[in-house]
Amino acid sequence: MPAQILVVDNLLLSRMILRVKLSAACYTVRQATTGAEALHHVAEHLPALVLLDFNLPDATGLEICRQLRSDPKTCSIPIILFSADQSRSTRLQALAAGADDFLSKPLDDAYLMSRIRALLRTSAVEKDYQARCTPTLRHGLAEAQSQFHHAPRVTLVRSSAILAQSNAGTWPDIAPELFDDARSLSVVLSDSNPVQPPDVLLLGPEILDEQGLHVIAELRARHATCRIPIAVLLDKTTQTSPAMVLDLGAEEALRLPLDAEEVQLRLQAMIKRKRKADAMRQALGVELDLASRDPLTGLFNRRHAMSRLSDIVATPPDGTARNYAILLIDLDNFKRVNDCFGHGAGDEVLIEASARMRDAIGPHNLLARYGGEEFLLLLPDAEMVQACAMAEEIRRQIEGRAYHLTTGDFRLQVTASIGVTVQTSITSEAPLSRLERVRQVVDHADQALHTAKTTGRNRVSVGHCSINPARALVPRRATVGA
Amino acid sequence: MPAQILVVDNLLLSRMILRVKLSAACYTVRQATTGAEALHHVAEHLPALVLLDFNLPDATGLEICRQLRSDPKTCSIPIILFSADQSRSTRLQALAAGADDFLSKPLDDAYLMSRIRALLRTSAVEKDYQARCTPTLRHGLAEAQSQFHHAPRVTLVRSSAILAQSNAGTWPDIAPELFDDARSLSVVLSDSNPVQPPDVLLLGPEILDEQGLHVIAELRARHATCRIPIAVLLDKTTQTSPAMVLDLGAEEALRLPLDAEEVQLRLQAMIKRKRKADAMRQALGVELDLASRDPLTGLFNRRHAMSRLSDIVATPPDGTARNYAILLIDLDNFKRVNDCFGHGAGDEVLIEASARMRDAIGPHNLLARYGGEEFLLLLPDAEMVQACAMAEEIRRQIEGRAYHLTTGDFRLQVTASIGVTVQTSITSEAPLSRLERVRQVVDHADQALHTAKTTGRNRVSVGHCSINPARALVPRRATVGA
Repeated sequence: MPAQILVVDNLLLSRMILRVKLSAACYTVRQATTGAEALHHVAEHLPALVLLDFNLPDATGLEICRQLRSDPKTCSIPIILFSADQSRSTRLQALAAGADDFLSKPLDDAYLMSRIRALLRTSAVEKDYQARCTPTLRHGLAEAQSQFHHAPRVTLVRSSAILAQSNAGTWPDIAPELFDDARSLSVVLSDSNPVQPPDVLLLGPEILDEQGLHVIAELRARHATCRIPIAVLLDKTTQTSPAMVLDLGAEEALRLPLDAEEVQLRLQAMIKRKRKADAMRQALGVELDLASRDPLTGLFNRRHAMSRLSDIVATPPDGTARNYAILLIDLDNFKRVNDCFGHGAGDEVLIEASARMRDAIGPHNLLARYGGEEFLLLLPDAEMVQACAMAEEIRRQIEGRAYHLTTGDFRLQVTASIGVTVQTSITSEAPLSRLERVRQVVDHADQALHTAKTTGRNRVSVGHCSINPARALVPRRATVGA
Repeated sequence: MPAQILVVDNLLLSRMILRVKLSAACYTVRQATTGAEALHHVAEHLPALVLLDFNLPDATGLEICRQLRSDPKTCSIPIILFSADQSRSTRLQALAAGADDFLSKPLDDAYLMSRIRALLRTSAVEKDYQARCTPTLRHGLAEAQSQFHHAPRVTLVRSSAILAQSNAGTWPDIAPELFDDARSLSVVLSDSNPVQPPDVLLLGPEILDEQGLHVIAELRARHATCRIPIAVLLDKTTQTSPAMVLDLGAEEALRLPLDAEEVQLRLQAMIKRKRKADAMRQALGVELDLASRDPLTGLFNRRHAMSRLSDIVATPPDGTARNYAILLIDLDNFKRVNDCFGHGAGDEVLIEASARMRDAIGPHNLLARYGGEEFLLLLPDAEMVQACAMAEEIRRQIEGRAYHLTTGDFRLQVTASIGVTVQTSITSEAPLSRLERVRQVVDHADQALHTAKTTGRNRVSVGHCSINPARALVPRRATVGA
């Protein structure tokens, strides 16, 4: 079934005309004659978009619009309000009630259809996000949204000639609190990494005349501007079709002279949508980062560590073999902490021990929680000397200070056993697959860890090593020569 | 700095002309005169796009193109090859070498600029993905790509009138192995959830003439088609500008009559890009799902469980209070398994126990790995009777059969202790915040678990409960009445 559009109008003829137009464009049209019917249909079928008449038998379109906006399930459905009433106050009321657009009857077909396309395009981004939306992602969005409370930033884009005239490029005296600055198109296109990217680009009426319509496609193609919504100001006399402006990717085509209040409402709606999209992207990024993290300690998780290790065990086709070291670190007698003080105390110890290890390692080493109280440290390019020094440093840091538990105000002494292995990446993957090689390497470290455990704990033990002797010698010679 | 374009040409005049054009459109232009310089510059600066002349002093453009395509670091950079040589074989060689387009000199400015925009637009999607690309996501992409090996599917879109004539709508005798079917525009727009979505939509030359250019925007706006690349066939005599076709979102504008081999190369490149993008989306989805999973057992992780629990502890503003139950399940003496048989064996037991629990619970209940060997089961809408029955069933399943360990061919007996609490969602969040309430509820289950542990293990214990008495009575009455 194609995108479903709900037409709400109590006049049969009105509904029929819209039905014919929309069906011709291959939308599925559903109809409602009253506000109650409309609300019921939306709740049941969640249409892709609602075309809503201002005057309904049982309610005003405004009331229906407000009600749809107030329900989290329906608040994102695009709504176009329309009316035979062309008065300014009706238009402003419609926009203030949350309508995405207000159109006067008789409807301009080309504009209506392009407006529908533009709204569906924007809402597709949101739907895509919602389709991926897990509870944690939803919580993340709420967090991210709370971070986007900076002042609104609308950048007015004017030609260099106009900007050169004093004051001519400045804000057209509407919504001064939304205004950020006026910039030339070339400055906007040239600044690929603005410190404070605008929330909206408002193109002055001369821009399309001078540059051509393709300037919208240009802004959509550039990395720095592709996610900033565009509103275009159109001269009264321009030949440019507002429908084409929307089809090329702009969100609004505003005719001059501007109605200050209307423009303000439209820009505010654009800013709100933009910030919601930004928050979604940010929440998604946080979520992806978390996919490779252990939730308790914030360290990388085992899966991430195995992926990185799998990249390292094999020598790249054009590269030379590298030495690397694996440390398996296990907190000694950890079960006793859980058993005597509860899981909460155990978690506190894990968090504190993780923090100490993180402080001890360099930025190029990878520390992961490998299991319950077991950690894996991957040292790319490390030789035996560095690996052992690092292991001993970690052992000392873990043991160094007592662990202060907030639950019950206890102080605990904790130690760790560490197994070390130093390996060389191998060029030929035969006869072992990369996965088997990863397993083998971890197994070597595990055997060393076992030795550390069985010989008294709180110590470092070195296990089976396969070092590239040529490279391993280099630092020793350097030491001798120094 | 704006998007950087590298111009590779040994003719000064040629470079200057391109430099002026590109600078006017606010691109940063870098120049190279030889193939070696070009390769060096690309490796160093990774430009957004390369404009590459066919004839270079030290190499052909073809060789440079092939070399850039063969390196994973540079294989995704868009390349436009150009030459004064207009011969068919040159064009085909360029496309076969991996060039995204081949243009003959003198260059058509409007087309060149729109082609650059279209390529930057497409590569932005890939860059966005790469910016989020963790090692695990990269591995996931490799996996996802291996799943997209179905036959290529190009759908030819023709007008209903042409399709009605026998054979007229069929494939224009080129690349039959790419051909999937011919469909009318309305069928394509109406089928919002095709079983086998096409890899490419190839619009017949009459489509734009009959429908207007906005049909491209229409396909881009619809959920079912917005990610399918579009190629448009243009009549020799058409007034439609290929540049506008690209700016509206199509990827190719092909003039009739078609060169079968050229079209095949271009369509194949589109299919390849489409499938890479699909694989990226899929890998991202898998990654997001994994963010809420415990990697070892595949169960939900603690963070996800806490988010869901946080949704449930509070009664929604319009809802009535609900009962729900929490079970904390802990494997008994699990440390011994790890200590005696190693972590590998411990992991096997966790995986098997998780599978047994997953089989025992219904689809609406949420099972998460809460800690090392501790699991949390959330039963929304459960009363005391169901919660206890479920707990006892899980205890039986865990104990039921011996655990067969592949490492060493051991058989182990495992049991679990379970703490149960039944709670009612609360309307007022005062005086406890939602987070405090979650902690409190889990704490009640933890106390019950502690009782189960201290009174002999392998048993279910019920802890502090706050049940809505009115609702709790309903099922009992029903039982009495039956």
